Amino acid sequence: MAKIALGNHSEAAQPDCVRAVLAEVVLTFLFVFAGVGAAMAAGKMSGGGDTIMALSAVAIAHTLVVAVMISAGLHISGGHLNPAVTLGLAVGGHITLIRSVLYILAQLLGSSVACLLLKYLTGGLETPVHTLAAGMGSFQGVIMEIVLTFSLLFTVYATIVDPKKGIIAGLGPLLVGLVVGANIFAGGPFSGASMNPARSFGPALAAGDWSDHWVYWVGPIIGGGLAGLVYENIFIVSTHAPLARDDEGF
Amino acid sequence: MAKIALGNHSEAAQPDCVRAVLAEVVLTFLFVFAGVGAAMAAGKMSGGGDTIMALSAVAIAHTLVVAVMISAGLHISGGHLNPAVTLGLAVGGHITLIRSVLYILAQLLGSSVACLLLKYLTGGLETPVHTLAAGMGSFQGVIMEIVLTFSLLFTVYATIVDPKKGIIAGLGPLLVGLVVGANIFAGGPFSGASMNPARSFGPALAAGDWSDHWVYWVGPIIGGGLAGLVYENIFIVSTHAPLARDDEGF
Amino acid sequence: MAKIALGNHSEAAQPDCVRAVLAEVVLTFLFVFAGVGAAMAAGKMSGGGDTIMALSAVAIAHTLVVAVMISAGLHISGGHLNPAVTLGLAVGGHITLIRSVLYILAQLLGSSVACLLLKYLTGGLETPVHTLAAGMGSFQGVIMEIVLTFSLLFTVYATIVDPKKGIIAGLGPLLVGLVVGANIFAGGPFSGASMNPARSFGPALAAGDWSDHWVYWVGPIIGGGLAGLVYENIFIVSTHAPLARDDEGF
Amino acid sequence: MAKIALGNHSEAAQPDCVRAVLAEVVLTFLFVFAGVGAAMAAGKMSGGGDTIMALSAVAIAHTLVVAVMISAGLHISGGHLNPAVTLGLAVGGHITLIRSVLYILAQLLGSSVACLLLKYLTGGLETPVHTLAAGMGSFQGVIMEIVLTFSLLFTVYATIVDPKKGIIAGLGPLLVGLVVGANIFAGGPFSGASMNPARSFGPALAAGDWSDHWVYWVGPIIGGGLAGLVYENIFIVSTHAPLARDDEGF
Repeated sequence: MAKIALGNHSEAAQPDCVRAVLAEVVLTFLFVFAGVGAAMAAGKMSGGGDTIMALSAVAIAHTLVVAVMISAGLHISGGHLNPAVTLGLAVGGHITLIRSVLYILAQLLGSSVACLLLKYLTGGLETPVHTLAAGMGSFQGVIMEIVLTFSLLFTVYATIVDPKKGIIAGLGPLLVGLVVGANIFAGGPFSGASMNPARSFGPALAAGDWSDHWVYWVGPIIGGGLAGLVYENIFIVSTHAPLARDDEGF
Repeated sequence: MAKIALGNHSEAAQPDCVRAVLAEVVLTFLFVFAGVGAAMAAGKMSGGGDTIMALSAVAIAHTLVVAVMISAGLHISGGHLNPAVTLGLAVGGHITLIRSVLYILAQLLGSSVACLLLKYLTGGLETPVHTLAAGMGSFQGVIMEIVLTFSLLFTVYATIVDPKKGIIAGLGPLLVGLVVGANIFAGGPFSGASMNPARSFGPALAAGDWSDHWVYWVGPIIGGGLAGLVYENIFIVSTHAPLARDDEGF
Repeated sequence: MAKIALGNHSEAAQPDCVRAVLAEVVLTFLFVFAGVGAAMAAGKMSGGGDTIMALSAVAIAHTLVVAVMISAGLHISGGHLNPAVTLGLAVGGHITLIRSVLYILAQLLGSSVACLLLKYLTGGLETPVHTLAAGMGSFQGVIMEIVLTFSLLFTVYATIVDPKKGIIAGLGPLLVGLVVGANIFAGGPFSGASMNPARSFGPALAAGDWSDHWVYWVGPIIGGGLAGLVYENIFIVSTHAPLARDDEGF
Repeated sequence: MAKIALGNHSEAAQPDCVRAVLAEVVLTFLFVFAGVGAAMAAGKMSGGGDTIMALSAVAIAHTLVVAVMISAGLHISGGHLNPAVTLGLAVGGHITLIRSVLYILAQLLGSSVACLLLKYLTGGLETPVHTLAAGMGSFQGVIMEIVLTFSLLFTVYATIVDPKKGIIAGLGPLLVGLVVGANIFAGGPFSGASMNPARSFGPALAAGDWSDHWVYWVGPIIGGGLAGLVYENIFIVSTHAPLARDDEGF
């Protein structure tokens, strides 16, 4: 079912690959700088409390910056910015394993630099880490991250990867930002709604707080891989327009 | 006037139909998981009170996730996610009756699973059900749901179904998300602004609270059907650009 | 300078014109129902006080619904929904005077029905009327409405009407929604940020409160007409790409 | 590395250049009127305090109006509205030095008129100036403005200037609005998140308060120039689709 490709050993030395990996560093840095920065700004202005306004500000900021940075990187690296996206696409054979490893290292590097810089620039404010809400067990947290990341990767497949995506082509990266935002509105106060191990890694490193951190690797990777398997095997083979579409796109 | 088609009895066994029905299950599940999840998150963070911040968070989350999930499903099932949309399109002959029934069952299933899962994952938090505001009668509630769902289906027809939609093609699903959000800002504190029987069904099932539930079937179905009739019979036959459009699209 | 066309006396009887005028009634009704409804919902949930949350909810709701309803009507009537837009386009010769009059009557009708219905459905809640903030003189209010409506019509001309709009074609109606939202964030607590006599007319009629109402005719009409004159005479004749655009669109 | 072009001495007299410079005046005026107006409205409604709601309102208003005004100006002047954008593009040779100087003067003029008018219309309310937060040093403030403006210009290059931007063409100006909004959510309570010397200049002039003002010239200009250098020399030469894009755009 899964179509993972190993890749050529010389791939990492190709100019295109170097450029793509650099783009993943830069774009993940810019994404995390805005995303974690917004969480720090929201925390500062709401006295560190978990308010619905802080949640809204963080969700909207992520909506915006994810849409932008995926769009900006689409033609250079594919604009992954997220190990769960990279692995979810590897499952479908859309990126080789060797390039996947380089991308993930790049994403972790970009996120770490962004968080360390934010900590320095704000005079030592803590970078807020993803944690499970009080009363939420690890198992429940993992399931929630699986569902939210499945949602993210399903959107990536349906609106960017699928050659049959049709008239919405071009809006894919914007829509991925939108689903990230919606999922933060839903999961933020419960599991943290990371959907992205790199997004969780930088703040944990800068704050030196690794509690629950494994949840944000296990959940997103399972959810992303599952979405890749489901989409590739059930939906991507569609070659005929369904009956409901008697006009272009419907 | 209405152009309802029965459909072929073997339709339900065609691969395209199976795939489309599965897509309606998955996409409605993801839509309701984010939408109802956002309502639960907002309720948790605002002490259960009906605040304008909670309303805004819920409206924005629905704006985002509806836009995404319709876009994601457009080329597979048409991205209905809503019995009122399915029936509103059946009135215009855009989907057969047999497929409509399968879609609606799929939507109810996706919504129910999402709400039961949310209840489990949040340690038993109640899924908020749509109800009429204090002082609002059933008749007024039904009328409001009719108007809001008419607005939704009119948008579906004008921006997705109508072959004359012109330069905005591709933005249709996004715009449908936007109109859902706007209508929640307006109707949320009055009728609940469901516009979607499946969106109301899952929370009612998980909470075991069916008060006012019929309102969210009667209102949306009348409003959706009415929009289908009006659009098909008055607006879709337009074949000449109006005088105001002396350039492409204007 | 102005290129106002009278129009043919039989125009009002043409099917296209009838359809377009009907679309203006329906779409203005749906726009005002969501826009004024959101203002009523925000007022209800914030105790009638002028809070920044109420402003934000109203601004975002207008952003969404204006984008949708202009998009939905673009291929039928041009999607004006606003006498200032209709007159601003008449100044540029894009719509005849006779059709302008019919459009404006349609817009006033749609807005009035929406507001009367909202008042009934909410059990008699007042429809909030546009008024000048305490300490703001009529002259200042008119100037602010001129600037905000100039901004709106300049956007209509640059992103929808201008044949040289280039790669952003299709986003025009969405962008007009965005500029309306931005201008409400800025002008809402000062002049009310109507930019639209029809949007002000319905609530004034339903509430029977006509104080300051003339401001929302004089300001928007001057601002809209001014933008039409400026754009038509300075910017629309552009036929060469400026030096800054050495690639498509830049 | 940098490809700065001097430009022809007669350039400033060409009709296209005059029109482009006029567009920069008008569009920067409209952008700053809405952006600074939103900051004044937010300040008025939240008692002048730095609340997260005020931050959110300002960030969203800037998101909207920046997207609109760049879109509106793209085909006339390129829609810069920002000396850091103009200089960042000059570094890549996309605009001549002589035209850059005219653009920057136009931007400062538009911003100044907008702020003086806002002060008059609101009965003398102060225009809020960009300043560094308490406890944030000048060096840290400059670095933060460098990062945020780098993010802005990287987005301009990747989504508007780069001929390989692909399927997202047309969304560039919208995405630039989105990144401005995200960066305000992140940097607003720390450095002010100006990213634009002209946006800072008008309020400082109207308020007569030039404290920290130099930060908003030095930071944005360094950040914008750096992004131009990095993008032109590393990313723009990409001519082969990366491996991750086995379909159009991916």
